[in-house]
Amino acid sequence: MVVELISVGTELLLGNIVNTNANFLSQKCAELGYSLYYQITVGDNDGRLREVLKSSMERSDIVILTGGLGPTQDDMTKETVAKVFGKELVMDEVSRERIEGYFKFRFKGNPLDDVVTQNNWKQALKIDGCMVLDNDNGTAPGYIVEENGKAAILLPGPPSEMIPMFEAHVIPYLQQKQNKVFISSMVKICGIGESKAETDIIDLIEKQTNPTIAPYAKSGEVHFRVTAAADNEEEGKKLIAPVVDELYQRFGNNIYSTEEGETLEAVVAKLLRQKNLTVATAESCTGGLLSGRLVNVPGVSGLFNEGFITYSNEAKMKYLGVKEETLRKYGAVSEQTAREMALGAAAASGASAAIAVTGIAGPEGGTQEKPVGLVYIGCLVGSEVTVREFRLKGNRQKIRELSVIYGLDLLRRGLLKL
Amino acid sequence: MVVELISVGTELLLGNIVNTNANFLSQKCAELGYSLYYQITVGDNDGRLREVLKSSMERSDIVILTGGLGPTQDDMTKETVAKVFGKELVMDEVSRERIEGYFKFRFKGNPLDDVVTQNNWKQALKIDGCMVLDNDNGTAPGYIVEENGKAAILLPGPPSEMIPMFEAHVIPYLQQKQNKVFISSMVKICGIGESKAETDIIDLIEKQTNPTIAPYAKSGEVHFRVTAAADNEEEGKKLIAPVVDELYQRFGNNIYSTEEGETLEAVVAKLLRQKNLTVATAESCTGGLLSGRLVNVPGVSGLFNEGFITYSNEAKMKYLGVKEETLRKYGAVSEQTAREMALGAAAASGASAAIAVTGIAGPEGGTQEKPVGLVYIGCLVGSEVTVREFRLKGNRQKIRELSVIYGLDLLRRGLLKL
Repeated sequence: MVVELISVGTELLLGNIVNTNANFLSQKCAELGYSLYYQITVGDNDGRLREVLKSSMERSDIVILTGGLGPTQDDMTKETVAKVFGKELVMDEVSRERIEGYFKFRFKGNPLDDVVTQNNWKQALKIDGCMVLDNDNGTAPGYIVEENGKAAILLPGPPSEMIPMFEAHVIPYLQQKQNKVFISSMVKICGIGESKAETDIIDLIEKQTNPTIAPYAKSGEVHFRVTAAADNEEEGKKLIAPVVDELYQRFGNNIYSTEEGETLEAVVAKLLRQKNLTVATAESCTGGLLSGRLVNVPGVSGLFNEGFITYSNEAKMKYLGVKEETLRKYGAVSEQTAREMALGAAAASGASAAIAVTGIAGPEGGTQEKPVGLVYIGCLVGSEVTVREFRLKGNRQKIRELSVIYGLDLLRRGLLKL
Repeated sequence: MVVELISVGTELLLGNIVNTNANFLSQKCAELGYSLYYQITVGDNDGRLREVLKSSMERSDIVILTGGLGPTQDDMTKETVAKVFGKELVMDEVSRERIEGYFKFRFKGNPLDDVVTQNNWKQALKIDGCMVLDNDNGTAPGYIVEENGKAAILLPGPPSEMIPMFEAHVIPYLQQKQNKVFISSMVKICGIGESKAETDIIDLIEKQTNPTIAPYAKSGEVHFRVTAAADNEEEGKKLIAPVVDELYQRFGNNIYSTEEGETLEAVVAKLLRQKNLTVATAESCTGGLLSGRLVNVPGVSGLFNEGFITYSNEAKMKYLGVKEETLRKYGAVSEQTAREMALGAAAASGASAAIAVTGIAGPEGGTQEKPVGLVYIGCLVGSEVTVREFRLKGNRQKIRELSVIYGLDLLRRGLLKL
């Protein structure tokens, strides 16, 4: 089955927003076993949308359209699809009642005719004979229209409305069309470069049929999605298990998770909780970003109580007890300073683990001996301090972002050893 | 003049990467005064790319293609464009010498035939009669092919190569074709919602012709790009000036910058430097993200030396001197605590300004009285402390991100008053 995407919206053509919808939908279609050969973006323009939709319907089985379902004159996706399918727009009673209820609640006591404009009623119209998809996060419903074995799926443009609607209504629809279930596992790796990771399993990737193994690029990490097509969930899981096992054989502890939504910081928090430890942070070049990542995890209080942003040498001495001699002799960006920062953060806070980052993020401040990108990360777990030196490539943002990821990963590895 | 984009790459169709190239190029084309009606993404497939390119060349004057210029068999954009234009591929001596030089340097002493594969030489081929665009950040050059008043511009896929090449070679080319210069200014606003900001200047937006005013959505901020088409730079600047002045009349201090690349944190750093002040931070729910944003600014040391991440009540008392009574009576998320955090951060660090954030980022921890999204931000500048209460909407990430922006903005406003 072949699916095609049409993103509708002049704001996309003006570069006002990035088309993350196309990315999300492409990923999902691949996971569901659909082939996708074209993504098209077109403005809120009846003639051009009609022309594009016609050629898409000719070459693909299913066309997913996002955007252009709002109440304004500009929004015309529903109207244009109806014309291409040769169908009428008719009042959808459920949508009409919902809109009525909304305005009754909002403008209590006023006659409806005074407060509901013609534009508002537009959102209660559906394409004759279509399925209406509820929108729990906005006012525009979605629609699925079928005709002669082809289908058009109309979804709202804002990702906060589109994604939940797709997950609730469109995935089951696409699964049932496909007559197969697709079970997948996301193998997430940190601490190995992308090309090294791919080379390590190139034999598996080349002989893949079912399950498939697809690499996903991600800053500082490598993710492999293992997907099996099967008749049912149980069979799918059975197909995936040996491949995931094989990846564990090859990558071992470099794999930090195989769960879709689990982040590196969530894994660190889980390990801290399991080992009954707390962590403190001491950050120089990352300036709070590593702590900020830890606090991404809901309920992290109790595991992470305090952190120090010690950008100046004075702050490193005052709060972390880094020795003046250490700073003078080895510099603020050194193995010795990173070690004393980690020890000092734990001592000051009373935490049982600590992570410390000091480095040169640039663009200024590099020397031949200590170039931009040189970062030392100190990690204390229990009584053991590990310091690792990194030489990172990229601009200031990139170096700091990678420092955060490698810092969290170093802590994860320290915790695993306990 | 009408331009059209074709992004080539199977990784886009699989949802492996987000198409930020299309966003960047669309923005630039709009700024340069080109109309853009279609963005198309197609895989590394000769037949489909050829079909798409043919229809794009029919309806548009210029087609910009990104991706598919690498050395592998999969990369076929150059070959396919040559076929559609009916041109041969010929050896480009400059590119050939560059590749030779690269391999001579890398594999010193080995005969070239041993180390350079046929694939490598592929990157030295150009379309007969085309312009070759140097790539300073990678191995694949770009190309511009012209025929019968139409043009195809071929650029590499990685943004780190594409963007510098576009800026160095393609912008001058497009400007000269257009016979106009486009001068623009980005008016950046913080502290007013998007729809309020648009409503405030709807009369200007509706009567716009030259300059144009285009709103850009951005989390927690509103940006308006003012663009004038003119015969020369001076005339363009003269056209823009009164519109920017009018926006200042309407938005006043809510405008934090009118410079393209200037961030909110850079403006804060500039004001601190101007007023000869230093700032310290105290963060609870944002957990270091605000400090992390400040450290985005290169050369921030001297202005920002230290910060406290005080996630627990104990840390708030220990480092910031927040009174136990305050925490008991008003709670950690309160105006009083935010005030004491700001005062405490300044006192402990000796900084002349401080910013403190405490709030409920969710998803747990909200009550009817203190719901998720309630955030207090305390700001000390000189001897004056301001505390503002915010009630933010969104998930944990969104609430924390907005808290950071509003915190920086509160500091900016405090500094402006001095």
